[in-house]
Amino acid sequence: MRLPDADTIAAVATPPGRGGVAIVRVSGPASRSIGHGLFRSGRPDFAGFKPYRLHHGTIYAPDGKLLDDGMAAFMPGPGSYTGEDTVELFCHGSPAVVRSVLQAACALGARPAGPGEFTRRAYVNGRLDLSQAEAVAELIAARGQVEADLALTRLTGAMGDAARELGAALADLAAGICLAVDFPEEEVECLPKAAFADGVAAVIARIEALLDAGRRARPYRHGTTVALFGRVNAGKSSLFNALLGTDRAIVADLPGTTRDYLEETLDLDGLPVRLTDTAGLRASDDAIETIGKERGLAKARRADLGLYVVDGSVPYAPDAEAEAVIATLTPAKVLVVATKADLPQAEPGPLNTLAARGIAGVPVSSRTGFGLTGLVAAIRALLTRDAGPPEPDAPAPSEREAAALTAARAELAALLADCRANLPYDILGVRLETASALVADVTGETTPDAVLNAVFDRFCIGK
Amino acid sequence: MRLPDADTIAAVATPPGRGGVAIVRVSGPASRSIGHGLFRSGRPDFAGFKPYRLHHGTIYAPDGKLLDDGMAAFMPGPGSYTGEDTVELFCHGSPAVVRSVLQAACALGARPAGPGEFTRRAYVNGRLDLSQAEAVAELIAARGQVEADLALTRLTGAMGDAARELGAALADLAAGICLAVDFPEEEVECLPKAAFADGVAAVIARIEALLDAGRRARPYRHGTTVALFGRVNAGKSSLFNALLGTDRAIVADLPGTTRDYLEETLDLDGLPVRLTDTAGLRASDDAIETIGKERGLAKARRADLGLYVVDGSVPYAPDAEAEAVIATLTPAKVLVVATKADLPQAEPGPLNTLAARGIAGVPVSSRTGFGLTGLVAAIRALLTRDAGPPEPDAPAPSEREAAALTAARAELAALLADCRANLPYDILGVRLETASALVADVTGETTPDAVLNAVFDRFCIGK
Repeated sequence: MRLPDADTIAAVATPPGRGGVAIVRVSGPASRSIGHGLFRSGRPDFAGFKPYRLHHGTIYAPDGKLLDDGMAAFMPGPGSYTGEDTVELFCHGSPAVVRSVLQAACALGARPAGPGEFTRRAYVNGRLDLSQAEAVAELIAARGQVEADLALTRLTGAMGDAARELGAALADLAAGICLAVDFPEEEVECLPKAAFADGVAAVIARIEALLDAGRRARPYRHGTTVALFGRVNAGKSSLFNALLGTDRAIVADLPGTTRDYLEETLDLDGLPVRLTDTAGLRASDDAIETIGKERGLAKARRADLGLYVVDGSVPYAPDAEAEAVIATLTPAKVLVVATKADLPQAEPGPLNTLAARGIAGVPVSSRTGFGLTGLVAAIRALLTRDAGPPEPDAPAPSEREAAALTAARAELAALLADCRANLPYDILGVRLETASALVADVTGETTPDAVLNAVFDRFCIGK
Repeated sequence: MRLPDADTIAAVATPPGRGGVAIVRVSGPASRSIGHGLFRSGRPDFAGFKPYRLHHGTIYAPDGKLLDDGMAAFMPGPGSYTGEDTVELFCHGSPAVVRSVLQAACALGARPAGPGEFTRRAYVNGRLDLSQAEAVAELIAARGQVEADLALTRLTGAMGDAARELGAALADLAAGICLAVDFPEEEVECLPKAAFADGVAAVIARIEALLDAGRRARPYRHGTTVALFGRVNAGKSSLFNALLGTDRAIVADLPGTTRDYLEETLDLDGLPVRLTDTAGLRASDDAIETIGKERGLAKARRADLGLYVVDGSVPYAPDAEAEAVIATLTPAKVLVVATKADLPQAEPGPLNTLAARGIAGVPVSSRTGFGLTGLVAAIRALLTRDAGPPEPDAPAPSEREAAALTAARAELAALLADCRANLPYDILGVRLETASALVADVTGETTPDAVLNAVFDRFCIGK
């Protein structure tokens, strides 16, 4: 824990833009007096803020200018989000009003908050552990329901609980060997080496399970990219629209629609998929079109999955540029889609030719919808490596947490090897301490400022 | 007054998008029970919502799924924004969370609110008059501080007060002639015709003052458009950037930057100005460029003010297309800007040539900033017809209110003529009643549903 901040910060807590209501949040030792300076109750018997009570009234600048009609609430520390005295001013969701209220709060002694500064104070004041603080940012940024659910599980403290359980198990193991370390001559009193090794292996297994949940969560959290590529007229644009499930007109004056690439985000049962329709491959003398094509091919090479769209109504004719893309992708990263499966002349040739080379594929008709369900299932399976998201209650570590847990696992694996090599307990004890410190990083008990800065800089202002 | 609505509505009250906090507002008879169905307090002694109190806890879907950690407040009617029982749920500003909380509220019996429906209920329940209700939408939409201040003045009820004063004056006049109407034989007991005429003239003068405030408010409320036009290389883009006061790079891959037109919004001391840089005029064989140029010229013809940009370092060379634009504009709608005033060869020729034709102009240097202050002052004066915004406390009627007041003024002018023609009081009384009803439209006491629909359809959802 660090010392509480001494200054008072202010920011808009609600999303930017226009709406019915916006909240200006002021947190810190001066928040109550700033609130009283800005707010006048409509009631003649108003005798100052009552904690946690919504007061209706008007908001004024220090020079007496009316800023808005609204509400105010005072939440005394430590029973507030930040753990400090906090005042929230509820005004109209008008950028002009919000700006003037914020300026007025700053004129009375607050300073504008930086990104994530409220949540950082909540962490510093012990209202949230670091894992929960990260979960706040993750929840706000969530694009799909699975991602939101992953964040909510961590927000309840499940990841911190798991880390504390690991820490307790490691502390038990440390207690079991402490006698041996302090009184090496009395080794008989200690945990037997075999039982100690079993205990370490159990902790490793638990960490593996957490890391596995993190791996399964990754495509849901970070989203996935799927790029369509293939010859001009293979049916890419029709497939793109069919996958989006809409016949939405692709307006021709959007940048890049014709010469560059199109992107849209799909939600496959909570899995965010950024779908790119690259420019068709064809020889071109036009410099701009060539640049567009190159960008499209680069997209396909970098995508989590490339959909190689081939015309299923004619025998397979290899395309040099498409083949060059395929050559750079592993089989798990390419799926062939043979289009036009509804045409009478549809034929198995293209799929068979590519299947013989180990590249899987499905036939579809963008026009009739034939095969689209199977295609979506195949896309999902490839992107999630046949695993769905973690169970709803299973905490999935963030990248930062996974890095700490991976390092802890490596340390414990080395410990296990040392143990099996029958090294003395005092050497094992050092590794155990290192692993414990790494596990404690999850909840941020021992996290350096640089890491904290990296965590909170990712927040929006006002949280 | 209308009957209160019997159903319960729900919507996000905060702006859309991501932020620290979002509010889901539920209003109507079932809001309290819906709130209790969604919210579980963290306190074991929680015994239901206390009015106006912020309760901390967790929000659940009806099926028991955790939706968020947050706060809830219950505001009993009539002491709420809508005048009905209202519950507000404070959750994380995450679109995924907001969507799920809203769905949960609807699963428990609320229905999604339409645009402005909360404010419409506030109006129906007598919490706001129609002028104040309109002011809420105006405040949220305000682009500049003057516009916000105009809305705030109306939000405090100043326009309704003015309308009620007019109504009272008309009622006094009606009382003064009622005896004459009811007992024509006792006309001696009545207000003398001359005093009556003076009273009517005073009301007309007051209406004129209100309409004048409305006219002065118009450019601040609705914004203004200024279009730069002129030959290629006259210095339009440099002037555009200089007026924006930034050297912001105009990224070349934005649609239309080179071939169509660029638009940015300026704030000239609270006056919103949409500044357009049209494509330079030059002969072109390129079909797309020609379309862009045509659009630019059309913008200049429709703008509130056209800035004709001419190169001030060479003698004036008339440009046929620019001259065609000027020919369609009145002198108050064109201002010549002679650029490159910092160059040694800068010369008065272009300005003098055009001044001789009655078209005013100023010399500027976009590079050194010379003349820009004067140019901005000239733009402002032309756009506001030399009048600033209305005084801060003067209520400025909206377009709807101005229409009602204009009709009332016409009726009163006719009344005055009738009075001077010595028509009998019972005929005058009919016109007086009509004028009173028109004035009452300002506060919405007699406003038909069609007008109310038009007012509230302009709102955002959630207010």
